Formats: sequence, structure tokens, C-alpha cells
Amino acid sequence: MSIDRFSPKARLADTGEGITTDELHLAARNHGMPLEALRYDLTPPGLHYVLVHYDIPMTTAGNWRLTVDGCVEQPISFGLTELRAMGRQTVRVTLECAGNGRASLQPRPISQPWLMEAVGTAEWTGVPLADLLAAAGVRADAVDVVFTGADHGIERGVEQDYQRGLSVTEALESGAIVAWEMNGLPLPPQHGYPLRLVVPGWYGMASVKWLRSIELIDHEFTGYQNAVAYRIRTEADEPGTPVTRIEPRALMIPPGHPDFMSRHRFVTAGEIVLQGRTWSGWAPVDRVEVSTDAGVTWYDAELDAPSNDDLAWRSFTYSWTATPGEHVLTCRAHDRSGRVQPVEAPWNRGGFANNTAQRLTVLVR
Amino acid sequence: MSIDRFSPKARLADTGEGITTDELHLAARNHGMPLEALRYDLTPPGLHYVLVHYDIPMTTAGNWRLTVDGCVEQPISFGLTELRAMGRQTVRVTLECAGNGRASLQPRPISQPWLMEAVGTAEWTGVPLADLLAAAGVRADAVDVVFTGADHGIERGVEQDYQRGLSVTEALESGAIVAWEMNGLPLPPQHGYPLRLVVPGWYGMASVKWLRSIELIDHEFTGYQNAVAYRIRTEADEPGTPVTRIEPRALMIPPGHPDFMSRHRFVTAGEIVLQGRTWSGWAPVDRVEVSTDAGVTWYDAELDAPSNDDLAWRSFTYSWTATPGEHVLTCRAHDRSGRVQPVEAPWNRGGFANNTAQRLTVLVR
Repeated sequence: MSIDRFSPKARLADTGEGITTDELHLAARNHGMPLEALRYDLTPPGLHYVLVHYDIPMTTAGNWRLTVDGCVEQPISFGLTELRAMGRQTVRVTLECAGNGRASLQPRPISQPWLMEAVGTAEWTGVPLADLLAAAGVRADAVDVVFTGADHGIERGVEQDYQRGLSVTEALESGAIVAWEMNGLPLPPQHGYPLRLVVPGWYGMASVKWLRSIELIDHEFTGYQNAVAYRIRTEADEPGTPVTRIEPRALMIPPGHPDFMSRHRFVTAGEIVLQGRTWSGWAPVDRVEVSTDAGVTWYDAELDAPSNDDLAWRSFTYSWTATPGEHVLTCRAHDRSGRVQPVEAPWNRGGFANNTAQRLTVLVR
Repeated sequence: MSIDRFSPKARLADTGEGITTDELHLAARNHGMPLEALRYDLTPPGLHYVLVHYDIPMTTAGNWRLTVDGCVEQPISFGLTELRAMGRQTVRVTLECAGNGRASLQPRPISQPWLMEAVGTAEWTGVPLADLLAAAGVRADAVDVVFTGADHGIERGVEQDYQRGLSVTEALESGAIVAWEMNGLPLPPQHGYPLRLVVPGWYGMASVKWLRSIELIDHEFTGYQNAVAYRIRTEADEPGTPVTRIEPRALMIPPGHPDFMSRHRFVTAGEIVLQGRTWSGWAPVDRVEVSTDAGVTWYDAELDAPSNDDLAWRSFTYSWTATPGEHVLTCRAHDRSGRVQPVEAPWNRGGFANNTAQRLTVLVR
């Protein structure tokens, strides 16, 4: 029995090939945030995007242990009660899946077929990762920090617990927290109950769910999710560059009302306030432009005051006088690092970090 | 500008046609229940299936009004506080989408492409619908009861608020409630906040969300969702028969661990307890059979004690000695009305009520 049939290699869709059954299986399990939920400052439970690589593991809070070991002065193991005694911090974080936008690429990388909804913003409460590392004592020989979850599966032939590494510097300086609450309630099962990592500004793959181990190692981590998956490549056999922070993006709430099947939009002519959210994992967004003629002319949107959490989304509005006919609405974000959201992002084999600008076709009547 | 491009007519997929972009847009918004969540008696928030025809409407609880009018002695309008004063009942209900299983049909009806995860069980708290109708006084000329939600859109060219009708008898005798809580918390936005109908035993289309109006009429309701959609048809131009109660189904938790991309399962040889849930909207399920050889031989599973809510799912288990090699697991439910879940359900144009038995291919090592 070849494992290839059960755990296929990565491939690109053929020209004109529709979404496959394998992709549909992933789309039926994982879900995006319906774009009208951009109206909420904090994404309500069940609307925040979720991507689970394997199965949601069966976990209990009572006997949960998190170990911190490896290149530390003193290995430590925490139960949840001990963790709570270490401190309590709440951070507002916009998380986005690294594969968001993948299904719109040509050719399409075969994987979780996200359109553009794989995003959400929540308040995560837990203890700063830096405090846990300080409690264990980071040794001078530590290079990378490896986070291991309780979820287990096979990916492209490699059996694994889900694991991701960060450099010691990233782990200490990213503002990451080890969280047990989402929006003031215990984590839902699909978001990592009872404990997860949250790394602000990074694509979601860094925020390991069902976190049970933090190991400091004296060399670069070369596990599957860092070295094989989540790399930007144009050729299959090149090493590629790692996927890290979230590229700038702006998304509008689709105005008017939809057709059920096509999701096309119908809008009544007149003054309409287009609303949306914008974020970047590199630096705060300080400008959003909107176009109502498919990108021929652009106008600045109004941005609300930034929140205290620089990397969480901000809201923007743009007043549009909608005239009868078909219109293509689009928008793009600029952040303080100088990054500008492209009208068309460069293609890559894994379909990662695709922040191509949203295009919304509406029929004004 | 033809509306057909924006609101296409129903069609079947061509032979070999992959899932379309329109179907993917629906799959990215709506989501099933990952089958490992069959382990929970009550489906946690965000894991229960959700199907929203149009957009989740922007609603507030403070000014919400529900009107009961038409063929009644005394029209009434309720705010949420007044409704809560009418009574409080909690019912455990298994809801399933009428389109569950659609995407596996050949040819495939083009619509929300469910595989088999469009299910969930929750405790809904509210006031019995029969009490509201009694308060208004059902007149002798009342024939149907029309429920209207706040969600608005276009479907196959017809602009509409989402509306469904029940006969007066069904409305009074189905045990339906008008609910404001799900699993002890206010309804999430996508499940109808602040108020929805829940009709036990019926496919989900009957349980109108964002409920704002109950109108009794003196004739049969012929609105779109009763007379056009949600009909069992084999030909496009026949009137068809209405989709009503949930057909019997049993689903197993996929054992072992998955491959990320193919969702194929890997199982370690030895004794394995297969677990699942079973339900029917017609009568309690009193027998589940399991086969581990693709349906050649069948064995009775053990059923747990039924809950007080006859139409909510029951749990079943079957002990299997897994031997190395590839195995196809399947199961089927029998209910007390005499209905038996088919190995292959008959095809229909809308892809409704398809309770074809689950088939799980596993590789035992």
C-alpha cells in the first residue's frame, strides 16, 4: 500500500480544473469569516476563521501540562492553575491564514482553498511568552524555540505533531502570549482549548494551538512546518524563503444584498458608506485607498483612530455615490513600513501571503 | 444588465466538472461540523454547522420586535423582555441542513456543496411557539403560519426576505420554540441573534433565523422557500414534494489520524472502539449497524440510552479488531418509524435529504 495515495505530494491545479474533492473536504471543515462580520470590532465565536491541519484533539484542562525545556537554566512544567498565577495579559490580535487568497491564484496550488475570508480579530488572554522563558532562564546557546501542539497527522508523507519554531529573538520580542481565553471565555476546542500560542503580526501558522511543549534548541529548527511547508517558492525544488509576518490588506464589507448562489451584490443607487477593516503584521496601516471604477481612480478612505494594539485591524469608511450600472469596487492598504497592497500579488507555489486587492462586483439599481 | 448573470438559474454539474467558484464562495462562508466534534454531546460554539442564505443581518436585541398577526384573534407584538416573561423552555435538538450530502451526488446539483458535516446538536432556550400562538388566538380560518427573518437577498431571480411556512398543525404540534439562547448563551449572530425559530425533527430550513414576524394566513403558503426551493424533484419542471423532516443518519468519528490534504485516515492495528452519533427527525433511532468491510457484513452497534429529547442524536459504539490493510467502514441507522438509512439514497435535482451511508476508507498499519 503506497502512502502516496493516502498522503499526496503537493501539486498545482491543471488549467481550468475545478476545486477538487480533497480541497472541498478541507473547505467543509475549516471556514473563513463571512465578510459582513468585518462590522464587529471583535469577531464573535464561530465567525473567526479557523484552520486545523489534522483533527481537533480531545483535550481536557484538568490534567493539561505545558513543559518548557531544552537550552534553559531550569526546565519547568506548568499546569493551567500555575500558568494563571504567572500573570494575565489581554492583547487584541488580527490573525490571518498564510494561505488566504490561495484559491484565486492561477495556477491554483491544491490545498485549503481560501478565497479571502481567512481572517478574524480576537482578544486573547494569557501570560506573556517572554515571562515563561524568563522563568525557565534562556541559556546563551539557545537559537530557536520550538512549539509543539497536541494535534497529530500526516502531511505530504511526513507523520508529525504540529510544530513550529521561532528564533529566540522573535519569541522574546514579538509580544507573543500563551493564551487560555478568547474574547473573555475559555478557548473553543477548534481554537486550541485549553492552551495556545498567539504571535501578534504573524500569519496564523505561528500561533500553535493545543500547546503542550516549548523546547529551546541550539540550532535552527528544521521541522516540516518551517522548512518544508510555509515557504515562498516559485519552483518545487528550491528551498524558498520562510512565510513570516502578515502582508498589508484591506477588506470591505460587501454593500447591499447578495444573490444566494453567485454571491453577486445588488445595491440601491444613492449615497453609500463603504466600510471595511485593514491590517498589516509589519507596521500599522496608515492609509487605505478605495476605487469604485476597478482601480482606474483611487481615493483616500477615512481611517478611524488606531487601537492600542498596533497590529490589530483598523476600520475605514468611504462615502460613495452609487450610480446605476455595474461597478467594480476595490481597495488597498499602505502601512508605515512602506509596504503597499498590490492590485495583483506575485504568484508562488504554496499560495502563501497572497494579498491581492479585493475586487467586488456590484450591480447598482 | 440581465439579472441571470447575477442570479443564475439552478443547474447540475457537467460530468467531471469540479466544484465551481460559486460553490466555493458558499463553502468558505458556511461550514460543517468537523466529524471529530461528534464526540461532544452538545456541539460547542463555532463547530455546529451553519448555513446562511444571504448575509448575516446587523441586528440588535434592544429594539427587536416579533409580531404575531394575520388570522388571529388579537395581533401581538413582543419585545425580548416580554417574550422572556412568556415562559422558558430548553430543548436539545439535532439540526441538519437539507442539502447535507449534496456534493457527493452524481450529477452534482450546483448549490452549497455539503459533503456530510452539515449537522450539530444544541440546547435551545426560548418560549414554545404554541404558547405564542395561543396568546394571539388562532382563528378557525388559519391554514399556514409564515415565519419571516431579517435576512434579505435574491435567489434564482427572486428578491425576498427569508420566509418559510408551516401548517397550523405542524406549528402547534412539532414542539417548535422561539429561542434566544443556544447552549445557555445568547444566540451567536450566525445562528439568528437575537431570536430564531427552532423546529425539532425538521431539516434546518424550517428553523427561521433572525425571526421578526409570524403571520397566520388562510391559504397554503406559496413563498419561494416552500414552493420553489426545498422540493424533491427529479425533473426541473415538476412541482415535486416538500422537504420536511430529517431522514435517519448515523455518522462515525473518523478513527486514527488524518492526512492533511486527502483527509485519508491512518489507524494502528488492534482493538478500536468506533464511536458515532445517530438521529432521525421521524422517530427515535433504535438500531445502528456497522460494517468494516464496505457493507458486505453488518453488525449491530451498541446504542446509549436515549435522551429526553427523542429527536436529538444518540451515541453508538462498535468494537473493531483492526487488522493491517485498507478497510472501508460504513454504518446505517434504523428508526422506529421503519425508515432505514440506505447505502445509496435516491438522487434528486436539488440534492436534498440525501442520507447515503457514510463510507470511511482507513489504512490500518
